[in-house]
Amino acid sequence: MDYIRDLEQAMSKDRVTTNETIIEEHSFDESHHTPSRPTVVVFPEHSEEVRKIVQIASQYEVPVIPYGAGSSLEGQVIPCDGGITVDFSLMNKILEVREQDLLVKVEPGVTRLQLNKELKKYGLFFTVDPGADATLGGMAATNASGTTSVKYGIMRDQVRDLEVVLADGSIIHTGNLAEKSSSGFHLNSFFVGSEGTLGLFTELTLKVHGIPEHKVAARAVFPSIEQAVSAVVSILHAGIPIARCELVDESSVKHVNQYSDTNYMEAPTLFLEFHGNQSGLQEDVEFTKELVKEQGCQEIIFETDSKAAHQLWESRHNLAYAFIHSYPGKKMILTDVSLPISELTGAILYAQEEMKDMDMVGAILGHVGDGNFHTILMIDKENKEEVEKADLYNEKLVKYALARGGTCTGEHGVGIGKKKYQRLEFGLAYDLMVKMKQTLDPKCILNPGKIVDRY
Amino acid sequence: MDYIRDLEQAMSKDRVTTNETIIEEHSFDESHHTPSRPTVVVFPEHSEEVRKIVQIASQYEVPVIPYGAGSSLEGQVIPCDGGITVDFSLMNKILEVREQDLLVKVEPGVTRLQLNKELKKYGLFFTVDPGADATLGGMAATNASGTTSVKYGIMRDQVRDLEVVLADGSIIHTGNLAEKSSSGFHLNSFFVGSEGTLGLFTELTLKVHGIPEHKVAARAVFPSIEQAVSAVVSILHAGIPIARCELVDESSVKHVNQYSDTNYMEAPTLFLEFHGNQSGLQEDVEFTKELVKEQGCQEIIFETDSKAAHQLWESRHNLAYAFIHSYPGKKMILTDVSLPISELTGAILYAQEEMKDMDMVGAILGHVGDGNFHTILMIDKENKEEVEKADLYNEKLVKYALARGGTCTGEHGVGIGKKKYQRLEFGLAYDLMVKMKQTLDPKCILNPGKIVDRY
Repeated sequence: MDYIRDLEQAMSKDRVTTNETIIEEHSFDESHHTPSRPTVVVFPEHSEEVRKIVQIASQYEVPVIPYGAGSSLEGQVIPCDGGITVDFSLMNKILEVREQDLLVKVEPGVTRLQLNKELKKYGLFFTVDPGADATLGGMAATNASGTTSVKYGIMRDQVRDLEVVLADGSIIHTGNLAEKSSSGFHLNSFFVGSEGTLGLFTELTLKVHGIPEHKVAARAVFPSIEQAVSAVVSILHAGIPIARCELVDESSVKHVNQYSDTNYMEAPTLFLEFHGNQSGLQEDVEFTKELVKEQGCQEIIFETDSKAAHQLWESRHNLAYAFIHSYPGKKMILTDVSLPISELTGAILYAQEEMKDMDMVGAILGHVGDGNFHTILMIDKENKEEVEKADLYNEKLVKYALARGGTCTGEHGVGIGKKKYQRLEFGLAYDLMVKMKQTLDPKCILNPGKIVDRY
Repeated sequence: MDYIRDLEQAMSKDRVTTNETIIEEHSFDESHHTPSRPTVVVFPEHSEEVRKIVQIASQYEVPVIPYGAGSSLEGQVIPCDGGITVDFSLMNKILEVREQDLLVKVEPGVTRLQLNKELKKYGLFFTVDPGADATLGGMAATNASGTTSVKYGIMRDQVRDLEVVLADGSIIHTGNLAEKSSSGFHLNSFFVGSEGTLGLFTELTLKVHGIPEHKVAARAVFPSIEQAVSAVVSILHAGIPIARCELVDESSVKHVNQYSDTNYMEAPTLFLEFHGNQSGLQEDVEFTKELVKEQGCQEIIFETDSKAAHQLWESRHNLAYAFIHSYPGKKMILTDVSLPISELTGAILYAQEEMKDMDMVGAILGHVGDGNFHTILMIDKENKEEVEKADLYNEKLVKYALARGGTCTGEHGVGIGKKKYQRLEFGLAYDLMVKMKQTLDPKCILNPGKIVDRY
């Protein structure tokens, strides 16, 4: 095709490919959404090449889909209408560590673990941890978050500046290196979470933190979900600067024990972590003990040695894999609503009840400090009825959350899966989003069909 | 005029005024920028009235300028081309305190102190403190921050949802009540700091915090600015969760002593505050003592009784008034650059040198934890040479900051004063901002001439 020939001329020919295996590898993500193949995959080495790719896409009006590690969970990287997938794996350099400024400048293909390995040398770490070893470009594109967001914030909070290639091929910077700015319109936050629909990120400047002096991890076991959530509310209200605060239900703990070879009590459990100085931490821990006991906590176990603490978080992070492992051949569907915390218990109970009523197998886990939880469902993609049931279940949870001031997605983003709820969630503001997308991308070439409808 | 008649018909006649005194009162803010009078001032009581006002403004293509407490510092509320000033003082109800969710819903005319008085009953407080008793609508419109932002974040970080009346009269909500969301484009952050140029805020949902269990305030005196800033870098790197961290130079302390009847040592000084639990705080304080001593701190005084601590922060907040008081008849100009912290010492030394070279009277103070500082200059507005010199000085600082990854405004916003630096700061991204403004406000009726040029 003409645009493939143009791509081959614009960049090195061996980084433009229609190889079957590579095309196939870029047709899906980690979600259950139906794969779709790109026409061509390109591997740019710098911003200037990305600009050329976008210019060619614009000229031929062909979709451009940015691709990081393929770990998105709502089909964000699936090329629904074919086109050019831009794989950023060759743009994987850590460009600068500004130790004094607590900033790093990276290319979009750098992964989270790669960055943390480098930062460790400086006594620093990057806080956002979505579980997967995602690329930082992808994490910014989907506004990722995870277990530590309750203390350190989500991806949007870490982005100080983005270099972005726009649909017209211009290259802009959305921010600057200052901690604080009231200048211009806030493009940083607007581009974070835009899932490649407004531009392609070619460089990121991110906030990093000093590795905390002391950490303590704990497991607190409760007779009920209600009591576990009430305990979290008490902890937050007391102003205890909790660093991680994860809820896993009985079914989740069962799968953890099977997969991770642990022997945790199979009941609703909070996985907690505290960061701070030694004496402050001790006081936080003592106070937390009191608070959880008031909420009927049956036992709270502090993992003081770092191996046990590591195992605790490993088992939490491996929970999704534990499910995949237990149901071979099935696909995982994750719900992702987030609500004001006063509505969280009700929402989780509703999620459990519906699961039972609809006769489905699954488990609940959540970043309860943020009001965000997931139901993990394992389904047979070939079984139409099962798929429809899972979709209906997902929709019920979304509607429950939206009716109570919540959102259809706390952290996985919109992609293909949550696009149908955008109008319901935003009302007239959805029209504004469409207008803004049209302003930035009049030909609708940037990851079309994600977040807002094609036009 | 026809549109005034229409306004009188659309809302109660006594809330539409061309009264000389009221017109005069709405012609200026707290800045040195040249006043300009609105044609009419209206006092809406609810969103529906604001919608009608905007619709009338759109029909007659007349400017609409939102007005809170008039405490803006870059001319944001000055109606440069006349038109309708929308004074929100009657929309001053605290609509809901969601204690469990740590959220409040307020009308835009509620002031910071009014909100904190109400929140105190719940053991809560609103963290952003710009000094002035600004309205929350105004603070969101200018993305205000202040002394506590180093710990709790700026205004943008507190806004969970805005109700906004757009230029076409539609009313949208920009967010939701969940702590975390990856849904849609992030309109919240985009509207915060837009200074009335994209829409008028008619309701705000804001994050609040529990009043900290313990607080300790301190003054640390240094032989030089460099050492004071180095001490701040050490504190930040050590991960000490400092709650306030303000630098005042020798001249500032002199003015403080004169105005606030204090007897502080007249040398570069850090005003510090720590929030936390008792033992954690103690450890933070001890660690800080070590760190500041390593940077040559001459003395550090902890104000343990709350009266002395209160006086310390009162004197800091009254610093601007101390200057105004000392130079009757003169107007204050405040510079407001913000830089990556590694560039801060250089910038402050440059600011001091230039002040000396240009033979100007002033002082330097700053939110150094955020890399943001102000030079206070007192000028005679009638003296053209003095005004030009102050403008040149301001511009020198802006250019110094922009060349080093900084921003022309850390917290005062763009308004009239910093508009001329937007292109320099944002390059091609400025064109994108203009396009977005045009998309949202095709007739350029929303606070025209602020942030971006009229079109």
